[in-house]
Amino acid sequence: MRELIAFDWGTSSLRAALLGAQGRLIEERALPRGILTVAPGGFPAVFDAACGDWMRPGGAFALLCGMVGSRQGWLEAPYCTCPAGFDELAARLAWVEPGRIAIVPGLSCERHGVPDVIRGEETQVFGAMELLGIGEGLFVLPGTHSKWVRATGQRIDTFATFMTGEFYALLRQHSILARTLPAADGELDAQAFQRGVRHALESGNLLHAAFSARTLSLFDRLPAAALPSHLSGVVIGEELRSQDLGALTAPLVAIGSPALTRRYELALQVLGVRVRSVGSEATWRGLWAVAQKLKDTP
Amino acid sequence: MRELIAFDWGTSSLRAALLGAQGRLIEERALPRGILTVAPGGFPAVFDAACGDWMRPGGAFALLCGMVGSRQGWLEAPYCTCPAGFDELAARLAWVEPGRIAIVPGLSCERHGVPDVIRGEETQVFGAMELLGIGEGLFVLPGTHSKWVRATGQRIDTFATFMTGEFYALLRQHSILARTLPAADGELDAQAFQRGVRHALESGNLLHAAFSARTLSLFDRLPAAALPSHLSGVVIGEELRSQDLGALTAPLVAIGSPALTRRYELALQVLGVRVRSVGSEATWRGLWAVAQKLKDTP
Repeated sequence: MRELIAFDWGTSSLRAALLGAQGRLIEERALPRGILTVAPGGFPAVFDAACGDWMRPGGAFALLCGMVGSRQGWLEAPYCTCPAGFDELAARLAWVEPGRIAIVPGLSCERHGVPDVIRGEETQVFGAMELLGIGEGLFVLPGTHSKWVRATGQRIDTFATFMTGEFYALLRQHSILARTLPAADGELDAQAFQRGVRHALESGNLLHAAFSARTLSLFDRLPAAALPSHLSGVVIGEELRSQDLGALTAPLVAIGSPALTRRYELALQVLGVRVRSVGSEATWRGLWAVAQKLKDTP
Repeated sequence: MRELIAFDWGTSSLRAALLGAQGRLIEERALPRGILTVAPGGFPAVFDAACGDWMRPGGAFALLCGMVGSRQGWLEAPYCTCPAGFDELAARLAWVEPGRIAIVPGLSCERHGVPDVIRGEETQVFGAMELLGIGEGLFVLPGTHSKWVRATGQRIDTFATFMTGEFYALLRQHSILARTLPAADGELDAQAFQRGVRHALESGNLLHAAFSARTLSLFDRLPAAALPSHLSGVVIGEELRSQDLGALTAPLVAIGSPALTRRYELALQVLGVRVRSVGSEATWRGLWAVAQKLKDTP
């Protein structure tokens, strides 16, 4: 069978992988060419620079996911409404070049009369389910905007976005707390981090809990070097506070880079919740699985 | 009796008032000379520029409150621990010039093993109690850092800080939401504001609720002009979510400028909570009342 070019094209960077038989990774590349760096009309050239040599005539088929399918991307792939599984994704691809290049749509869901969206994370969740051999579960994808995703029967039922990474950066760089925090984050102080998690859970409100980074410093209760870890614990603790973790029947699955999933493991330890971590290989696996659906479709 | 120079010297500005018999306002002044604009050693000159003409020999006595008593201010007035009333404040003044110029200390309290602090707001709460003829209640002082203060028996028992105004500014100016929001806030859209309040209450988490400003715009559910009001409602709603408003036996008291207290009235309407608003005259009244304590003390 044909090779697959799996492409994760996000806001600030892109990653591409050439996958062979059974989805085996042949080669992997990354470029700092997120969609925000690409001028209108510039997508074909960047795509070509990233993997033109893989697109031999009659050769690989390219499947893309992430913000490349947004209104600011190469071609808008309208959101699929939840619940959605492989079939819905495969049926709603946006074709950049028929039979050659396609973009996986993101998903939308609605809660309390307000919509929510993901682009790229749906593919990672499907990939993680394939890798772990499960068809349901609760998944967290930490990041600038963390996503919490619930799946049953190999379909995504619902999800919610938490602006955790972005709030940390805002507080870190632009708030009054920035005056007290050291210039660099330094290494994670696990104890200060978990204390921050606990404070967020007890306080129940980030608007209040974040102020602790100021007062603990004011009263010399925490050294300046430990404040970034404390604040990171506070925002991640706040994210965890709203998840229904008591009802879990299987381990929570965290998908992302080890540096990030490690923090979530530490935070979830405070709550006594078990977590399995999966790395970025989930994206390749998810794109591979969607591509197999296409092959099955006449 | 002597005149009183009442002085509210905060981070970004200062206000001064000359008070006569019974605390009657004779004259009021404001300068954009908050403590952050004053170089070390520069406080006497700025004080003199603001009200030197009021400090006639044998004339007025000056009582100051606010961040001027912080470590970055004129003279540090160490925090008084809660509970605290007029007596504690009067006994713990920091004297810049004996008998002539004194600074009211701020208060500290502790919850969940984390300290909290106020400077200036304690004086406003005492002033509001004097103005309204009450000795207890729940008080909200909206601002960059909103304070929620509980008092009984003419003493402040406890309080909590919420970084509401600062979070709004961070999201407004530096977050991904800034891309969708119009350049200027425009007039408050009461309906969009109250919808934001409701969303924060239902969502239960600012990290999630704030994202609604992006998705409502993405799906054309809210015009761009209404997004600042929506976002303001979300952060103020998040602040209200954590207050124990069901147990109120008397109206909540909001202290601040009409532009701010008006938003809290609108937000509290969503919860069916009555509120009485008091303006900046509370500060003058509070300083006057502390000064009377001094007169009583031999």
